[in-house]
Amino acid sequence: MATALHAERNEGGIATAIGILAQRFGDRLSRSEALRRQHAHTTTWIPNEPADAVLFAESTEEVGEAVRICAAHSVPVIAYGAGSSLEGHLNAPFGGLSIDLSRMNRVIAVHPEDLDCVVQAGITRKELNQQIRATGLFFPIDPGADASLGGMAATRASGTNAVRYGTMKDNVVNVTAVMADGTVIRTAQRAKKTSAGYDLTRLLVGSEGTLGIMTELTLRLHGIPPAISAAICSFPTVEAACNAVIATIQYGLPVARIELLDELQVRASNTYSGLDLPETPTLLLEFHGTESGVAEQVGTFGEIAAEHGGGNFRWATREEERARLWQARHDAYWAVRTLRPGGSVLATDVCVPISRLAEAVAGAKAECERLGLIAPIVGHVGDGNFHLSVLVDTEDPVEFRAVESLLGWLAERAIALDGTCTGEHGVGQGKMKYLERELGPALAVMRSIKMALDPQNIMNPGKIVRL
Amino acid sequence: MATALHAERNEGGIATAIGILAQRFGDRLSRSEALRRQHAHTTTWIPNEPADAVLFAESTEEVGEAVRICAAHSVPVIAYGAGSSLEGHLNAPFGGLSIDLSRMNRVIAVHPEDLDCVVQAGITRKELNQQIRATGLFFPIDPGADASLGGMAATRASGTNAVRYGTMKDNVVNVTAVMADGTVIRTAQRAKKTSAGYDLTRLLVGSEGTLGIMTELTLRLHGIPPAISAAICSFPTVEAACNAVIATIQYGLPVARIELLDELQVRASNTYSGLDLPETPTLLLEFHGTESGVAEQVGTFGEIAAEHGGGNFRWATREEERARLWQARHDAYWAVRTLRPGGSVLATDVCVPISRLAEAVAGAKAECERLGLIAPIVGHVGDGNFHLSVLVDTEDPVEFRAVESLLGWLAERAIALDGTCTGEHGVGQGKMKYLERELGPALAVMRSIKMALDPQNIMNPGKIVRL
Repeated sequence: MATALHAERNEGGIATAIGILAQRFGDRLSRSEALRRQHAHTTTWIPNEPADAVLFAESTEEVGEAVRICAAHSVPVIAYGAGSSLEGHLNAPFGGLSIDLSRMNRVIAVHPEDLDCVVQAGITRKELNQQIRATGLFFPIDPGADASLGGMAATRASGTNAVRYGTMKDNVVNVTAVMADGTVIRTAQRAKKTSAGYDLTRLLVGSEGTLGIMTELTLRLHGIPPAISAAICSFPTVEAACNAVIATIQYGLPVARIELLDELQVRASNTYSGLDLPETPTLLLEFHGTESGVAEQVGTFGEIAAEHGGGNFRWATREEERARLWQARHDAYWAVRTLRPGGSVLATDVCVPISRLAEAVAGAKAECERLGLIAPIVGHVGDGNFHLSVLVDTEDPVEFRAVESLLGWLAERAIALDGTCTGEHGVGQGKMKYLERELGPALAVMRSIKMALDPQNIMNPGKIVRL
Repeated sequence: MATALHAERNEGGIATAIGILAQRFGDRLSRSEALRRQHAHTTTWIPNEPADAVLFAESTEEVGEAVRICAAHSVPVIAYGAGSSLEGHLNAPFGGLSIDLSRMNRVIAVHPEDLDCVVQAGITRKELNQQIRATGLFFPIDPGADASLGGMAATRASGTNAVRYGTMKDNVVNVTAVMADGTVIRTAQRAKKTSAGYDLTRLLVGSEGTLGIMTELTLRLHGIPPAISAAICSFPTVEAACNAVIATIQYGLPVARIELLDELQVRASNTYSGLDLPETPTLLLEFHGTESGVAEQVGTFGEIAAEHGGGNFRWATREEERARLWQARHDAYWAVRTLRPGGSVLATDVCVPISRLAEAVAGAKAECERLGLIAPIVGHVGDGNFHLSVLVDTEDPVEFRAVESLLGWLAERAIALDGTCTGEHGVGQGKMKYLERELGPALAVMRSIKMALDPQNIMNPGKIVRL
């Protein structure tokens, strides 16, 4: 391993660069401690490591200018979107500049004929869908938070719709990015397909700001389906539910969403969201298509579910009913908190081949029991991706160690099943320690790319790969 | 631009490396001129530039060993699959070793529950589909030739099914690759989703052997649909046909194939394939789904087509009828040759946003007329991707120059319309000259990646980027 660059803070460089930036950007550069802390990691127990200043950028050119100033003085630069990342992506372990892109929140163009749009990176997914609603199109990727599109691209986010619509990697056509020397590139043209050289779009998607800062994105849009139906079905065991999912996917049923809630999660959601579901493992589904297509899908799924012991099968086409069910799913985090008032909830994320899903989930539940931890499970199970919401008192060192042990066990277990330690949350600081095991010599290739494109290690240093 | 590495042949290194390779691999290393020529570029008029020897590799380890020997002596290495690439990818302008992967043609594993399989890179797409047929699954990507999966991944190939199933970038889960120093990496685990660091899978897909040699691939499979229907429809103009395609895509109709044949191509195919289609622009479609779903799709498309002046609408569900139509489509190249017996046919490839398709196609037809060239058009128009099959007497220097002018015009035109000079054929040697215009400063980023991962420039040098 190469010697670490920026193993310490470059105090002189930081002071000089911040001074120049303050002169250039006036009160759009802030050194307020509260603001700096709010722009570092805030969502989990990973310690908060603030940058030295926060810049509210308003254009790609300004981001380029700021990066050039930082590059000239070897100062780290960390992009900030909505602050909802979960693995410490926003921390500044070596100090530097946080560039807040939230004012870059315009829809630059919508091309309904091409089913795409061009947006600035700071717009959030809900705001985007709000603004394009009149076109009859929507952007399907929906991580739990109302994240910014730039942040979603940076972490290769996905969510409940990924089983049908793919992840960010499948829905970004090109990006405009500021690279480590301040150069602005556009990774591809707007054509839907290209074989013109290396896929820089997908290299930047998932790079977590460590290779460049995405400032604009061309996104694929999808038609709002003429008919939508939700369905819900109870299963005797997690295995039975997983097997129903496998059968559904294998059948080729184009489910738009297929989510697992284990019995603990159902109990929490019953209480929090006022539902009355049987407290057993439950699948929550959504079907998109034409009226008759959706009816056919629901019917087919009903048969598959019955074959796997599914019961209490219900479906809903009215928007209010559907909205109520999905609101409950999106409120899963808050519901879990009711299981232990005052405790914290830690969201984990692993993904395995779907054939290994049942054993992965069952194993995780057994490990929680062994460690005396309570951790409801929700999962985007059509993709083999699931989350444990671990209830924890972060002030209790014994419990803290038990949770750390669980996270390590879960990552190793997912890797052993030919899966990944992170399906959609990214690496950040939190998952770096598992990458060597997961990727082996491929990690050295990632390191070479990082060193080639960011030789000073100023782009979000201390994330993904250690230099 | 950096000084070119290998601007000349490294005679001493080549002699030494080939000697060592001959000793190690015996008669699996061949220096026969015929074989060397057959392993270089043969499909278009780009001159044939043979390597110094051809090695028939039988395992990833052997490929690694050969690359290490070549790396030790700074000798170029070019991977060979089925020899069907169109832009000079297989040429060895600085000599070196061609590694033939065609003996690495095994299906290593099929995981029906996960809808994936693991194959060696040398297997061809037809052979793969033959071997997995009993599982009820298929691999949809279908370039014209019966290419190898490794070659298809290397050029980011697609074909007629891409409008529904995506391209190689969407259907490769991970790859095993031998990098420039002989290290073997696996780019990702087998989980369907991952956000574990840089997307090396998609960096290697489309890299044309210039960053590493893919030896194994995990591929996504799809269920063979329970019902398939083909449809064919004539239009008064190319514009009307393109507008019908746009409306179809916008409606969200999940067409599996939607291909355009212009009137010249229809005439050629009528003659060659014994069809009796009206000689006007024609769309050829395929629908996949359930019985009722397919019937509904055909009905909806019929209405859309009628709104855009489509006529002579016919559809076919019987396999023989469908096979006959698609055989005609796949024989388009041979059909074109009948338009001018004795001439050559040059296949071009550009892709534009679908909203610009009609003007791109119309412009190309006008430019052909201006230059006095005959060039039927076929296109994967659901993706905005189309090909001209230019009839040319390569011995006639005037005509040769006219064709070169057409190719340049077409590439520039596609780029001006926010499209790409290559939608699915790759860059190779043939399209390098257009990349600066298309990618601007992004090309320098590609060059940095190439230099970082292949500092000696031995991996398929002289393709994609100039060093």
